[in-house]
Amino acid sequence: MAAQWVYGFGAGKTEGNAKMKQLLGGKGANLAEMAALGLPVPPGFTITTEVCTWYYANGRTYPAELTKQVEQALSALERHMGLMFGDPENPLLLSVRSGARVSMPGMMDTVLNLGLNDETVAGLAKKSGNERFAYDSYRRFIQMYGDVVLEVPHHDFEDILERHKRDQGVTLDTDLSAETLKAVVADYKALVLKQRGQPFPMNVQDQLWGAMGAVFASWLTPRAVTYRAIHNIPEDWGTAVNVQTMVFGNMGDDCATGVAFTRDPSTGENYFYGEYLVNAQGEDVVAGIRTPQSLTLKGKEKEKSALPAMEEVMPGVFKQLDDIRATLERHYREMQDIEFTVQGGKLFMLQTRTGKRTTAAAMKIAVDMVNEKLISREEALLRIEPQAIDQLLHPTLDPMAHKRVLAKGLPASPGAASGEVVFSADEAEAKAKDGKAVILCRRETSPEDIHGMHAAKGILTARGGMTSHAAVVARGMGRACVAGAGMIAMDYERAAMMIGDITIKAGEMITIDGGTGEVMLGVVPTIQPGLSGDFAAVMEWADETRSMGVRANAETPLDARTAHGFGAEGIGLCRTEHMFFDPARIQHVREMIFASDEGSRRKALAYLLPEQRKDFIELFRIMEGLPVTIRLLDPPLHEFLPQTEQDIALFAQSAGVSPERVRRRLAELHEANPMLGHRGCRLGVTYPEIYEMQTRAIIEAAIEVAATPEIMIPLVATQIEFKLMKDLVDRTAAKVFVEKKKQVSYLVGTMIELPRAALIADKIAEEAAFFSFGTNDLTQTTLGLSRDDAAQFLPEYIRQGIFARDPFATIDVDGVGQLIEIGVERGRKTGKTLKVGICGEHGGDPASIAFCQGAGLDYVSCSPYRVPVARLAAAQAAIRAEQSKPSASKKEAA
Amino acid sequence: MAAQWVYGFGAGKTEGNAKMKQLLGGKGANLAEMAALGLPVPPGFTITTEVCTWYYANGRTYPAELTKQVEQALSALERHMGLMFGDPENPLLLSVRSGARVSMPGMMDTVLNLGLNDETVAGLAKKSGNERFAYDSYRRFIQMYGDVVLEVPHHDFEDILERHKRDQGVTLDTDLSAETLKAVVADYKALVLKQRGQPFPMNVQDQLWGAMGAVFASWLTPRAVTYRAIHNIPEDWGTAVNVQTMVFGNMGDDCATGVAFTRDPSTGENYFYGEYLVNAQGEDVVAGIRTPQSLTLKGKEKEKSALPAMEEVMPGVFKQLDDIRATLERHYREMQDIEFTVQGGKLFMLQTRTGKRTTAAAMKIAVDMVNEKLISREEALLRIEPQAIDQLLHPTLDPMAHKRVLAKGLPASPGAASGEVVFSADEAEAKAKDGKAVILCRRETSPEDIHGMHAAKGILTARGGMTSHAAVVARGMGRACVAGAGMIAMDYERAAMMIGDITIKAGEMITIDGGTGEVMLGVVPTIQPGLSGDFAAVMEWADETRSMGVRANAETPLDARTAHGFGAEGIGLCRTEHMFFDPARIQHVREMIFASDEGSRRKALAYLLPEQRKDFIELFRIMEGLPVTIRLLDPPLHEFLPQTEQDIALFAQSAGVSPERVRRRLAELHEANPMLGHRGCRLGVTYPEIYEMQTRAIIEAAIEVAATPEIMIPLVATQIEFKLMKDLVDRTAAKVFVEKKKQVSYLVGTMIELPRAALIADKIAEEAAFFSFGTNDLTQTTLGLSRDDAAQFLPEYIRQGIFARDPFATIDVDGVGQLIEIGVERGRKTGKTLKVGICGEHGGDPASIAFCQGAGLDYVSCSPYRVPVARLAAAQAAIRAEQSKPSASKKEAA
Repeated sequence: MAAQWVYGFGAGKTEGNAKMKQLLGGKGANLAEMAALGLPVPPGFTITTEVCTWYYANGRTYPAELTKQVEQALSALERHMGLMFGDPENPLLLSVRSGARVSMPGMMDTVLNLGLNDETVAGLAKKSGNERFAYDSYRRFIQMYGDVVLEVPHHDFEDILERHKRDQGVTLDTDLSAETLKAVVADYKALVLKQRGQPFPMNVQDQLWGAMGAVFASWLTPRAVTYRAIHNIPEDWGTAVNVQTMVFGNMGDDCATGVAFTRDPSTGENYFYGEYLVNAQGEDVVAGIRTPQSLTLKGKEKEKSALPAMEEVMPGVFKQLDDIRATLERHYREMQDIEFTVQGGKLFMLQTRTGKRTTAAAMKIAVDMVNEKLISREEALLRIEPQAIDQLLHPTLDPMAHKRVLAKGLPASPGAASGEVVFSADEAEAKAKDGKAVILCRRETSPEDIHGMHAAKGILTARGGMTSHAAVVARGMGRACVAGAGMIAMDYERAAMMIGDITIKAGEMITIDGGTGEVMLGVVPTIQPGLSGDFAAVMEWADETRSMGVRANAETPLDARTAHGFGAEGIGLCRTEHMFFDPARIQHVREMIFASDEGSRRKALAYLLPEQRKDFIELFRIMEGLPVTIRLLDPPLHEFLPQTEQDIALFAQSAGVSPERVRRRLAELHEANPMLGHRGCRLGVTYPEIYEMQTRAIIEAAIEVAATPEIMIPLVATQIEFKLMKDLVDRTAAKVFVEKKKQVSYLVGTMIELPRAALIADKIAEEAAFFSFGTNDLTQTTLGLSRDDAAQFLPEYIRQGIFARDPFATIDVDGVGQLIEIGVERGRKTGKTLKVGICGEHGGDPASIAFCQGAGLDYVSCSPYRVPVARLAAAQAAIRAEQSKPSASKKEAA
Repeated sequence: MAAQWVYGFGAGKTEGNAKMKQLLGGKGANLAEMAALGLPVPPGFTITTEVCTWYYANGRTYPAELTKQVEQALSALERHMGLMFGDPENPLLLSVRSGARVSMPGMMDTVLNLGLNDETVAGLAKKSGNERFAYDSYRRFIQMYGDVVLEVPHHDFEDILERHKRDQGVTLDTDLSAETLKAVVADYKALVLKQRGQPFPMNVQDQLWGAMGAVFASWLTPRAVTYRAIHNIPEDWGTAVNVQTMVFGNMGDDCATGVAFTRDPSTGENYFYGEYLVNAQGEDVVAGIRTPQSLTLKGKEKEKSALPAMEEVMPGVFKQLDDIRATLERHYREMQDIEFTVQGGKLFMLQTRTGKRTTAAAMKIAVDMVNEKLISREEALLRIEPQAIDQLLHPTLDPMAHKRVLAKGLPASPGAASGEVVFSADEAEAKAKDGKAVILCRRETSPEDIHGMHAAKGILTARGGMTSHAAVVARGMGRACVAGAGMIAMDYERAAMMIGDITIKAGEMITIDGGTGEVMLGVVPTIQPGLSGDFAAVMEWADETRSMGVRANAETPLDARTAHGFGAEGIGLCRTEHMFFDPARIQHVREMIFASDEGSRRKALAYLLPEQRKDFIELFRIMEGLPVTIRLLDPPLHEFLPQTEQDIALFAQSAGVSPERVRRRLAELHEANPMLGHRGCRLGVTYPEIYEMQTRAIIEAAIEVAATPEIMIPLVATQIEFKLMKDLVDRTAAKVFVEKKKQVSYLVGTMIELPRAALIADKIAEEAAFFSFGTNDLTQTTLGLSRDDAAQFLPEYIRQGIFARDPFATIDVDGVGQLIEIGVERGRKTGKTLKVGICGEHGGDPASIAFCQGAGLDYVSCSPYRVPVARLAAAQAAIRAEQSKPSASKKEAA
């Protein structure tokens, strides 16, 4: 039996539904679903994603049965509509749109008005009674098809149009007459012939197959590849093609087109949020060329717009749309992003999909929908992207700060950001790589700018609305964005922007506030936002739901306080060496390293003891009895040594030795591969007095504050190594207990950060009270990959698909993950009460947290700002683990 | 039931046997065995090694039952001998000797004549009718006991003895009268009182327990610890104590003492080889103070000695001894190292043990014994220490070379060696660490010198015989040794040695020939020895026996020829980068690296192509159709770059760029951890043109010589990485085949040298034709241990027992070994025809080879000189695997 490559909808039989996203793409599946719900969807058919896969697997050709199946689907459409594709009298016109499994806004190309040619355009003019409309549609079709399918540059068409507008003395497209549009069409066709060496295709079948091919081809354009790389969308998913009967929002003033969200995607507020344009086609709204109008009076009011709302202009249609809004939300139990067109006063739904939203909005919508009993708490938790919580935690402008507002645009994506002005995506990326904060300033953005938007702290555009490319993408990425600040003139040539008589050049600092739309000169101080009640509710639900603990990696009082404020349940990694870099201490640390014998080393350590003790006392106090895991000295000693000639001279002088001697010691301590060198517990083994001092400081502090410290031995590779270090800690603690006549409990555990440690975890667990997977170093050793050096080739590796993701950001499940699972399993075999956590960067990465849940970890530890992210991610992981249980037990039974 | 801590032998009941070495130590077990065989063994008893273990586990105390068991054993002895311990009339005298499981020559201490005191000495005088003998025995006892048990320095006793000899005008101890010896005894006792603050113990029980305690305590002396560390003897084995009735070789001229080997330990020749001294105690022979005489006429002749052989002097006793020699060899089926004493014409056997021997001797003895049908081929193979084969392969003196012989000593351990003269073990060790070859020159050596002997290339002594400490230890270590070169005066103070009027200072170069005993000035050229027929026979048997292949790591024609000559069955690792360092090529390599684009890189590579092709052609020709595994470029590029300022200037000039640009590129290529950096197939992924050139060179060469190359991709971490590289190789090969109109077979495989690669071996094996475990890097990554930097702490790690052995020398079975096993198992799961080998340094290490056998590897690859070692080790591993099979299947059945 031949495979079914084509699925129809709306024309009598609807063969798909919303669950078939994998096959039909998101748009196709939802069109079928809406059709089945009885909503007014222009009928059409979807060519499946399997065709795309087949197309690439077979040298960009189609399966044999496709032609026939498309013919059949087209015939069904013709019958349903009573129109004929390519018929000069009653022409059926089509839209051809891409539709991947997940929405990829602006990434895929669309062709509207397909089926028009020199003959059918006349039929359309006659039927619509609107020649101007017909030729406008024809010229749009040639322009779009020329650009997308024939690769004639968009701006060449625009130039022709501009010329005619200039000649006619008009500024709006809508002011062009049918006659002029005919001339435009002629010029367009001439342009195509000149550039492509072939005339624009008049055969409608050629048009259709050309457009379909362009959709499939666009799957592999660099910008699509980049978008998928950023959003971790697999290359092999492919896209579907949706072919749909055209409806026209540009047939006159009883026509309109619009996009809307069933709730406010910025704040989450439960009101109908959207924009429309009268007498326009969809691209006019999204492209931000005309300034769109609000759907509702409330929206109009909120945006202080002077333009009439749809609620006023087309109350009947608006009512119908508002009902559909309710239907869709009830049906999908999720906030929807919809597109619609009104043709001759009749409403058509062109798309519905889950709406993108800011994190604050996601919080509010989730909490509201739980309260509205639309969804469960678990569903609510699963709907919030943990990564995005980050953006809630980023600073907003200090309301007390002085600010010089230069301009105002739309508050397109919340958050405040300061940075150097840059005018191109490439520049943004380059400067960001150098560690600079940049604000990407563009007239408007396009998919080509995505890498620059990703690299920037914020985005500022002079044109476009709340649903413009810049706004949608920035919200998705969690970047601050001010859009459509029309008073700003961007001059890319001069690398400057002008606001009235003020000129801001590339490299100058500005601040934007995506919550208010303000653009300010210089760096404006920011503050931590007070987190909303929704945030608190979500976090509370998350805490009730998750099974893993969440700790923070922190050593400074500031970090510890931040972590505690964000709900960390302890410190999972306190890197004691960070405490050594204090300018008042580094001298003594250096003296310790320069000591030629144990005695002098002890002398230098004696100075550091009270300092370390003070650190720990403060840390224990801040954490109020929560567990604090302290890692003993880890990095190679030379990290503490003076590096520059000036530093060397200074240190030599104060230490009373010759600079030559300092240099000699530096050379002695030099290592070919410090990552694999004399560090971690190797220092403890060779210079036990260092760990002895640190243990003493920890235990003395714990006695003073009555804390229960967890002492962690780093870089353990063998059982004996750990045992030696544990004995040292125990001996030292026992001594302190006797001296202070007081005892505290403490645990001694280890980092598992070497493959060997994971492999012999059963032996180490005989002695260790806890494990903490140090996945940074475990990734470096398992993959033989230096984090400091990988930049030379890692991007290329990700580009070529060798790594699906940066293994330092998300746990490499196949390699490092296996070792973690081995480590946990073997460790628990001998360590019945073993506590197991993770303290690498991965501890704050949602995908990695999900892995940790599966591996059975007790807690994750991450940087303070990631704590809320981790709390939510851990809750999601617990829910998903619970959800997958029945099928897991089924598997076992099988 | 109380444990049995004491085992008797010779006095009626003999409770032990040779198999009980673990419990009784080697000496004790063999004494029991000889007693059971009916050989004349002085009766005694053994205190087990378990007492030693108990002693250290319980704060240096003894188990409660021990006193009673010793009493009982002593009573049995007294009854059997008709003597009483401590009885003034009929005193029983004892020797107390240590005896560990394996022979540790000179490491453990011995006390003879125990039981003598001011009363019993008189009884001994009366009974022996020889007062001089009695007091000589007494003074020897006090001296030995004083030194070993009471820790009064040996030389203080010697000073007293020397003074009396001077006073009496005699040079030999034997010329001292009874009266003088009484005075010596009095002075000895005074010395002990003065130094210890207590009189010398007169109570014989105190003497016995004191001596036993000293034996146990000596187990942990630094020199014992060092010996065990060098020979990999576990600390927890402990030593036994043998208490035995004294027999005296020093009661007169019908007395003698000697040591012998049942075959020549230097050459393996089947004749009775040994030395004896009339009227002497054992230590006189071993210490080399008097020059010992040959046992046999043949030996006398061989050594051109003027002193009479035992065969002449005591023909009857000699006959008896010669019969015992035959009995022991038949019984033990192994060459024996025996000690005996003749007391009043009566022969007593004091020890038998497997004799140490040179490797050449081991070869000959093994082959001879197979021919004599004493042992099987398998036994013969197991008896040769693979590590020691090395010494057969080391150069001997070029017979044509001019040599200036300065002195001649005994040919104590074969092999020729040149090096700087050093006069202390510490200096030897220090210079060897700096990579210098040294000859350790000593009057005589002692256990304190072992570390220096280990570090030296050769050992030269002025005193001592073929069984002196220097000779025995040097043979065991495979070091060249010339012993007893009496014409040399060692002046440690002036750091010089004098031979007649020639003075050789520390630091001057000399050459010694341990095969002839010659000492020569300067460096004398050496040549590779022709390997003996025995060697060939053993190697042939090994080849027939082993199941693993043996290949060599080689890239130069010289190495390849050496490897081929040593029987390598192919090249397991040809490191192509070594071919890049040729001065004629490095310029182009550097130009390639400096190329700013692919085009310029290809230009530089085009120069290298014919050069690489030439290399491979030669290599394929030398290997005559054997497999050659070629690894594509592996090291970080900066290894090829100029390092010194001068080099930078030179390169900049010839490349026509500024030195500044060269320095900038160097900085760009600098890596924090190059071991984990941009190297291996990461170069192939980012600069595919390099691997393309190398593949082309290999395939073109293979077409020319009709070879079947195995192309190896280094540092693979992921399946896609390997697939990409394999595709590149296949594409390139296909291109060459078309151009040359000729095809060859080739394989593409990979190094497994990262933990991740081992973990995902099943996936890699879907694509790879072979695996080669790169255990150098796998050890570095699994343990997180940089080989270049580990020197800072590795010795300390081995000293503290954290590593049993250097993990870069012998595979870390628990960590790296697990990954190898995982890699093999998973690799074979998907790669049904997968070939698996090893090409790290471990490929030539016998212990690691045994592991490889267990892990199921197909072959090992090692450096050319290790090939014979590996062939034998692989045979041994195969035999042992076969031997352990029945018990293994039993386990499975259980």
